[in-house]
Amino acid sequence: MRKVAVLGAGHTKFMFDSPKTEIEMLAEASMDAIQESNLKSKDIQAIFCGNVLGDFSEGQGMVQSYLADDIGCFNVPASKFEGACASATMAIRDAFMWVASGFYDIVLAGGTEKATAMGTSLATRTFAMFGDSRYEYPAGFTFPGVFGMLAHLYSDQYKVPLKKLKEQMALVSVQSHYYGKDNPNAQFRKEITVEQVLKGFMVTSPLQLLDCCPFSDGAAAIVIASEDIAKKLVSKPVYIAGVGQASAGKISSQYKYLPRIRSREISVKQAYDMAGLGPKDIDVCELHDCFSIASIIAAEGLGFAELGKGGELWEKGETKIGGKIPINISGGLKSKGHPIGATGASQVYEIAHQLRGELKDQGRQVEGAKVGLVDTLGGDGTIINLILKVD
Amino acid sequence: MRKVAVLGAGHTKFMFDSPKTEIEMLAEASMDAIQESNLKSKDIQAIFCGNVLGDFSEGQGMVQSYLADDIGCFNVPASKFEGACASATMAIRDAFMWVASGFYDIVLAGGTEKATAMGTSLATRTFAMFGDSRYEYPAGFTFPGVFGMLAHLYSDQYKVPLKKLKEQMALVSVQSHYYGKDNPNAQFRKEITVEQVLKGFMVTSPLQLLDCCPFSDGAAAIVIASEDIAKKLVSKPVYIAGVGQASAGKISSQYKYLPRIRSREISVKQAYDMAGLGPKDIDVCELHDCFSIASIIAAEGLGFAELGKGGELWEKGETKIGGKIPINISGGLKSKGHPIGATGASQVYEIAHQLRGELKDQGRQVEGAKVGLVDTLGGDGTIINLILKVD
Repeated sequence: MRKVAVLGAGHTKFMFDSPKTEIEMLAEASMDAIQESNLKSKDIQAIFCGNVLGDFSEGQGMVQSYLADDIGCFNVPASKFEGACASATMAIRDAFMWVASGFYDIVLAGGTEKATAMGTSLATRTFAMFGDSRYEYPAGFTFPGVFGMLAHLYSDQYKVPLKKLKEQMALVSVQSHYYGKDNPNAQFRKEITVEQVLKGFMVTSPLQLLDCCPFSDGAAAIVIASEDIAKKLVSKPVYIAGVGQASAGKISSQYKYLPRIRSREISVKQAYDMAGLGPKDIDVCELHDCFSIASIIAAEGLGFAELGKGGELWEKGETKIGGKIPINISGGLKSKGHPIGATGASQVYEIAHQLRGELKDQGRQVEGAKVGLVDTLGGDGTIINLILKVD
Repeated sequence: MRKVAVLGAGHTKFMFDSPKTEIEMLAEASMDAIQESNLKSKDIQAIFCGNVLGDFSEGQGMVQSYLADDIGCFNVPASKFEGACASATMAIRDAFMWVASGFYDIVLAGGTEKATAMGTSLATRTFAMFGDSRYEYPAGFTFPGVFGMLAHLYSDQYKVPLKKLKEQMALVSVQSHYYGKDNPNAQFRKEITVEQVLKGFMVTSPLQLLDCCPFSDGAAAIVIASEDIAKKLVSKPVYIAGVGQASAGKISSQYKYLPRIRSREISVKQAYDMAGLGPKDIDVCELHDCFSIASIIAAEGLGFAELGKGGELWEKGETKIGGKIPINISGGLKSKGHPIGATGASQVYEIAHQLRGELKDQGRQVEGAKVGLVDTLGGDGTIINLILKVD
């Protein structure tokens, strides 16, 4: 298989209650990505799109086809991927393969979502359908419940007292807001304090309001092309050096492994092995911080810390710029926002800009970053990882 | 890219109001496909799944992950595809690429749907979200309306008097039931007459009840593997010789081309070119007969008849076994049933069995068939075509 690169990338502002439709938002991000790639719409050979709640929020189930038509990619193959929060990353990994195989040379991949129109309460209930709807959701396992349980299991299993764990979790959110305030696309651009997190209202023990990411409206898209085309069109192609994906069963079927997410360990190993790299080689990481505890668990699963020690990364500032492993310098889902089916593409957008060294103006550039890792979690444990790299 | 084959295939009975869940139905079809391939669950390296209304009908959005876990394909990458009625074919085309590229050797692809639980009226309204929800659906364009309009346009444009066209359309449904009665997986296993069709109640002018396929519950799945593995495992691999896919915009954006479906003409050309074959080489075809007029339009788009002459194929019996181009010998969507996200996999199941010569016992074998064509239409014009072939 041949080398494949990310060329341009586009990103709408993430926000509450966007006045635009999902297709309009994705069209905006897509056109930016195409123009940044020095291409025209007619050069796009196929479209790979993540979208989850479009049928619920707008009664629109075919965003991929109408997007193609609206942006002038007439009649190109357009496929939609659904893997809950990991939908766009799923689409991008798939797009990667169609180019790596030689079938297509230039494709567009991204995601879009309007998740705020129905309100957070209804959205949480609706989104619970990406857990097990037969036994676990009726038992109260919406996602705040799942991650609340993981926090308790984590505290118990690794002997991290809950009070200490909650402080570590608070630091995760505080750091996300610290960087997110400088991200012009972020939904929440203000700093918060540990005290604010710990005094927030309880959502599901032990998760308080500021331990939880929002739902958001927004879209992001990238153009992927073969190495030879990428080199001709852009000065700094960002190569997709490794990809990984794994699924997981119901929470109950994962019970003995929890709070570790076995699918993440399997997925990221695929990506590391394919890239010939390991955790020590990662200069910057965007991981799936749907809840603060999720970041700590993810950091361990990705190999950045020993089990039970993930929270110490944030305590010691190792996840900041200049630290051992800068994490979620975009603001993450917590501050940047979480438009479900767009999130993975937003993560790739961020890593591509970090590796191209284009975030100095925003005051949040990881200097000299050459290798980046994307980690997205969908539902009860669908994990997709991408390793991006510049020469 | 290397040659890729369909090994085993599995298919539940299509029915109204299945007592099983979507995951259970797909598990049944998948295990049959795996066993028919002389494989075990642990041999499956990835899963590609079509499903459309699962979130609406069962509140279950992650059928692909739980399927993987339930059938013992623990932690394998499992992706879900949504392209309305073409979802499973989209999944299969994608699965084809992951094996053709050499990334995977053995994968499972299929689809599942419970479309009857909500009742036909609500299902029709719900399913309208796979048309344009912003302008066209509010204007009354659910899919019966779209195809009713196509029938009127067809009659007008090709000077086929509506009375004659309706008789041709009736013959399409009559033939589907004629063969469907012998398909043990079909939902409606009884013959109907032209008179019954023409006396049925009017759904949307000029479509009467028996011009319309039902919604159904059911699942189908296939195993896809590389040529070398296929030759070791099964006596008659069915090769995927060509694939095609194209999208389309809103009905209004297609207006000048209608009743021709431009995306179909683009998609099937891709498949023909890739296979090095043309319409004359096709021995048996499963095409997307969601409405009787859709079959006539599809037959022309696929190259089996001149524009305006599609209906004559059915009048002359050319679409029957022994005719020029046997079409929908399974009973098609009309008689076999239409579980939306499973339909494409069901079409592949049928063609694979025809090419392996295994339908003699059912009295509906196209003798000596070597090349088969699959045609699936999703929403306003997403088309996917697959050409299957035996040596």
